[in-house]
Amino acid sequence: MECVRYDTRGPPSVLSLNSVPIPKADKPGQVLIKVHYAGVNPVDTHLRGTHHPRLTVDLPATPGKDAAGTVENVGPEVTQFKVGDRVFVSNHSFRSGGTYAPYHLAHEDEVHHLPESYTLQEGASLGSPYFTAIRALFIAAKAKKGESLLIHGASGAVGTACVQLGIAHGLKVYGTAGTEGGIQRLKTAGVAGVYNHRATGYIENIKQEFGVRGVNIIIEMAAGHNLQKDIELLSRKGRIVIVGGTGSVSITPALILAKEAIVTGVKLADSTKEEWSEMSKVLTDGLKAGYLRPTLHKEYPLREAEKAHHDLENTDGSQGKLLLKVI
Amino acid sequence: MECVRYDTRGPPSVLSLNSVPIPKADKPGQVLIKVHYAGVNPVDTHLRGTHHPRLTVDLPATPGKDAAGTVENVGPEVTQFKVGDRVFVSNHSFRSGGTYAPYHLAHEDEVHHLPESYTLQEGASLGSPYFTAIRALFIAAKAKKGESLLIHGASGAVGTACVQLGIAHGLKVYGTAGTEGGIQRLKTAGVAGVYNHRATGYIENIKQEFGVRGVNIIIEMAAGHNLQKDIELLSRKGRIVIVGGTGSVSITPALILAKEAIVTGVKLADSTKEEWSEMSKVLTDGLKAGYLRPTLHKEYPLREAEKAHHDLENTDGSQGKLLLKVI
Repeated sequence: MECVRYDTRGPPSVLSLNSVPIPKADKPGQVLIKVHYAGVNPVDTHLRGTHHPRLTVDLPATPGKDAAGTVENVGPEVTQFKVGDRVFVSNHSFRSGGTYAPYHLAHEDEVHHLPESYTLQEGASLGSPYFTAIRALFIAAKAKKGESLLIHGASGAVGTACVQLGIAHGLKVYGTAGTEGGIQRLKTAGVAGVYNHRATGYIENIKQEFGVRGVNIIIEMAAGHNLQKDIELLSRKGRIVIVGGTGSVSITPALILAKEAIVTGVKLADSTKEEWSEMSKVLTDGLKAGYLRPTLHKEYPLREAEKAHHDLENTDGSQGKLLLKVI
Repeated sequence: MECVRYDTRGPPSVLSLNSVPIPKADKPGQVLIKVHYAGVNPVDTHLRGTHHPRLTVDLPATPGKDAAGTVENVGPEVTQFKVGDRVFVSNHSFRSGGTYAPYHLAHEDEVHHLPESYTLQEGASLGSPYFTAIRALFIAAKAKKGESLLIHGASGAVGTACVQLGIAHGLKVYGTAGTEGGIQRLKTAGVAGVYNHRATGYIENIKQEFGVRGVNIIIEMAAGHNLQKDIELLSRKGRIVIVGGTGSVSITPALILAKEAIVTGVKLADSTKEEWSEMSKVLTDGLKAGYLRPTLHKEYPLREAEKAHHDLENTDGSQGKLLLKVI
């Protein structure tokens, strides 16, 4: 099969199509998936590029954590899946190869049934963004019904997931976006307060909305810019979960102390088996209930993975999900 | 009785002796304590001064959270204490007045029996520093046996408490101090690694000790200086608990994310009833076992509270506890 590979880390141009044998599901728990769509995520570009030296990757590598398709074959002891099932996969364990390929060999722990009401494009858009949002809200922030939630950068893939999960779980959800399209999508989604983070004084407007009580939970996509503002906006015992952000930022630690605030971050690959199981249940429940709907933006053929990576790195991600169409 | 009071917030000179009636233990749960020694804590000077505008205080006020003495009288429904009992008190609920006074009216929830093996000076030195240490280690950092613990500023009152609690609870304890006396005390206490935080390159020495695995828990007394260094020293899923620190510090949030680190702080006054009960049990167990021993530095007569505050504000606290001798 022709899959996307890279032999060295570097710019998007290191990606090329290479011929490799189709893998076999011959070990216990293995599921071979015929990939229809692969999701393109920031983690894919971080692993490929050289800006995140702390991330390690075995070379040569095929990019991709997320995909949706149909079950082509199953290994011994697989009971949850059968040939032909519509499934999506999110592979953060590094036990298997990437999803930018016509066939992806996964472990059944990482494979999920895709309800009929979801397209395969939507299925390929679920894994990384929705698991990240679930980890941020329920594992890191321990969000509880009735709490206020500000998503600082709410119109991207993880932000959209946080909005839908927050509303469905009874939180009072506020969000920022930087484009007219993003702001409209947040309003349509039922966000209680929408702020343009490119407008001067928007932080003051948020402060006025929350007053001295502050925001209970902030999910932060650009911590290198916003962390101090978030600490100021936070309530007593509030939580800030960093999902993204490069660079340095000056903060006043005494304010963390005075509020007994928690500043933390989420990294899917560090999830324990128990946490994956807990997060999968939240995702599965949301899919059954039907309130989880990723925003799709653009499809590229598999051979244009380089262009997809280039575009992801040169936009703010707020227009919606990028996918590779594999077949 | 002649107690220390202040009518306006300001420098130590706002403190003066004033005559007020001796309070009565006439409501359910009240315990009147004849104060022998009152502990002088940073929180007393923060409430009195004007550098912490977020802290509020009803004026006129008598300073003091901590004291030790004997039970003078008890109100209705008090079953845990009787006249003459040796007790210590730590009052962070703002339900009662300060302890810089010959008599202190407390609620029995805040009063603790002092074992015979402890002097009343030691008793007056326990409350705020030990409860802060217990809250930092077991509520905020959720410290577990076998983990590594670095106390960044370990020779002050809270630092000493963290060292003793950490060792007794099976953590591997490391500490920094800035004076020869402090370093010696840490060595005597059985700290596994002692570093002089005034020596050039001490952070590099700590990094070498822990290598890539990093430190599990850091208790930080000067976050305005050290927070970024702490984030660098931390292990995956490590916790930094800010106990003190003014000013601003530049940090790299992506490193919090990459480690799924937790940065938080402790403020005793925000403890819930359940947490007070949990923290009291840890303290009581430690006193019974006998491993909790505050370091005493200096006693002042009650009328010299101004001098005690001045001295506390002009030293780094690393020489040990300051007390007011009340009778």
